[in-house]
Amino acid sequence: MPQPIDDPACGHGAHPERAPFAAPSDQALESAAAMLSAAGDPARLRLLLRLAEGERCVSELAQAEGDKLATISARLKLLHTARLVKRRREAKHVHYALNDDHVLRLVRNILDHATEDAP
Amino acid sequence: MPQPIDDPACGHGAHPERAPFAAPSDQALESAAAMLSAAGDPARLRLLLRLAEGERCVSELAQAEGDKLATISARLKLLHTARLVKRRREAKHVHYALNDDHVLRLVRNILDHATEDAP
Repeated sequence: MPQPIDDPACGHGAHPERAPFAAPSDQALESAAAMLSAAGDPARLRLLLRLAEGERCVSELAQAEGDKLATISARLKLLHTARLVKRRREAKHVHYALNDDHVLRLVRNILDHATEDAP
Repeated sequence: MPQPIDDPACGHGAHPERAPFAAPSDQALESAAAMLSAAGDPARLRLLLRLAEGERCVSELAQAEGDKLATISARLKLLHTARLVKRRREAKHVHYALNDDHVLRLVRNILDHATEDAP
């Protein structure tokens, strides 16, 4: 696609504006990108969708997904490292849930977008 | 982390439930994952943040980011392929904007989450 390399002025005044963002710190930006990247895989996103319905233990998720416990655990570990999910241990079982409502909204929002705009 | 491989039953009744998700199609799931993955890079996420303030042309973004037009164009192309941004051409200039309010909410939401929870 040709770019306007010869004339950087484009008459910015024509652009409708929203309120400016408070520039996030580099750390917040890196952290947000890591979250998106962790969620940006169909198998991991499907796990987030299941957790959007409520807390689940690893064995439930493995059963629902038809995958091995080790496979599910590896995906959950990645999601946990990115702080998209939280976990709690109860006796022998590890229960996972979405970390907070931001993650719930993220998952709902992206699926709405993908579903509406699917080509 | 040890997993409950010997006892798959965990007493699901204890899990608080939310409304079940309508299972998305494989295509919607792939598309959503591709969007998250495209946004899941600090440099591309920063572009989305700038576009969250309003429409911008490529040269403005290049100037704001202190990067070459070609670099910015490559990032925008990837975001466009993932349908996170839309573009319109006006004379020699190409103007980019967030594709819709879902993307605006996605960007705001993930930054809120990252900023609140920054370790």
